[in-house]
Amino acid sequence: MAESPPDESPLVFEDPAYRDAVVDLLGAVSYGEISAFERLAEDARMAPTLEDKVAIATMASAEFGKVAALHDRIRRLGADPFEAMAPFRDAIDLFHAHTAPSDWFESLIKAYVGDGLANDFYREIAAFLDTETRDLVVASLDDEGHAAFVVDRVRAAIGADPRLAGRLALWGRRLMGEALTQAQRVAAERDALSALLAGGVDRPGLDLAAIGRMFTRITERHAARMEELGLAA
Amino acid sequence: MAESPPDESPLVFEDPAYRDAVVDLLGAVSYGEISAFERLAEDARMAPTLEDKVAIATMASAEFGKVAALHDRIRRLGADPFEAMAPFRDAIDLFHAHTAPSDWFESLIKAYVGDGLANDFYREIAAFLDTETRDLVVASLDDEGHAAFVVDRVRAAIGADPRLAGRLALWGRRLMGEALTQAQRVAAERDALSALLAGGVDRPGLDLAAIGRMFTRITERHAARMEELGLAA
Repeated sequence: MAESPPDESPLVFEDPAYRDAVVDLLGAVSYGEISAFERLAEDARMAPTLEDKVAIATMASAEFGKVAALHDRIRRLGADPFEAMAPFRDAIDLFHAHTAPSDWFESLIKAYVGDGLANDFYREIAAFLDTETRDLVVASLDDEGHAAFVVDRVRAAIGADPRLAGRLALWGRRLMGEALTQAQRVAAERDALSALLAGGVDRPGLDLAAIGRMFTRITERHAARMEELGLAA
Repeated sequence: MAESPPDESPLVFEDPAYRDAVVDLLGAVSYGEISAFERLAEDARMAPTLEDKVAIATMASAEFGKVAALHDRIRRLGADPFEAMAPFRDAIDLFHAHTAPSDWFESLIKAYVGDGLANDFYREIAAFLDTETRDLVVASLDDEGHAAFVVDRVRAAIGADPRLAGRLALWGRRLMGEALTQAQRVAAERDALSALLAGGVDRPGLDLAAIGRMFTRITERHAARMEELGLAA
């Protein structure tokens, strides 16, 4: 079905595998938001000034503010949000455990790069969704407004101490590596999500070459973000 | 001036002492919200289940969500929000340092009782404000919606282990005592705020007896909250 009318949602959800995949995706995104909230709130404590603290707490609250709509949608699909999030807790918790920032700048970069990576990944998957779910997922990802604050602080810090750039560039690569490791783990464990990417009789899917191109796009956008921060990708 | 027309605000702000007092109050409320956000977000980590974590993170985000409007108002009064908050950081930080919860139930009670106390106190002060500021302050305090969750959890825990009631009742008294200590400290240090309570030529003020009645009201409402939790005040 190359052209989908906007009211296709009820029909497509008659396919239980599709519904399971969407519940999975919404569960993963919402646990990701909750857990981003927690880490950002914790990072706020490292903020050097009250202004910085308020800026990072604003990012934390923005992440958390998206959870209610995602949970509503999961409930309307007849599933329980907390059950839907459960399968993704280990992978997301491990991502955070393996990328605990050791200072304020690592926190800032993690907030910016980690959020960007997650957004890119979910946006790629959203392309395979019905219109209504896609709009919800994309709306839940949209907050580029806070990026300027991070870019400003990191560039100023590197300007003041150029040696910082090497360590922070390494940190960006570590964030990317850990994100890929955990994404792969999730893909291997969650059949419904993988099946979504593989497509169905009436839905387009991805072959191996297309998956490769998808990761290339995600990697390129990561590199562009690192460059904006004044760092080598 | 017993009856104040709703458009009195511009006039009343021509009194620099009144303006200073309002900036002080908005500074205190907004730093209180930021700091409540931080503590609640930290407490969320102690949550026994993901459901509880989401409930307490919702309270944290609600506190933080009020800050932007308060800061806007401070800016419109020609002051800097961060300068306005500065004089209250010590008292509010000390309140939190002296009332660090040692477990999940102390966190819940602190969230409920501490928020309630702060709200009662600001509501009493709001009575001495121009209509516009009063509406803003009262709106920033209104979130009784989360109380049911705390009451439910605490009553269930006491039902399961009645010995908990004694320790948590003591905890409630400690929160009240520490809040009064810090409020007194602020009152002694901030002349503009005290002058607001004392009234002016065209504004009613509080004599010592009225201040006594105000604290009686606050204490009674604290006792009512403790009782709702199933605890002796």
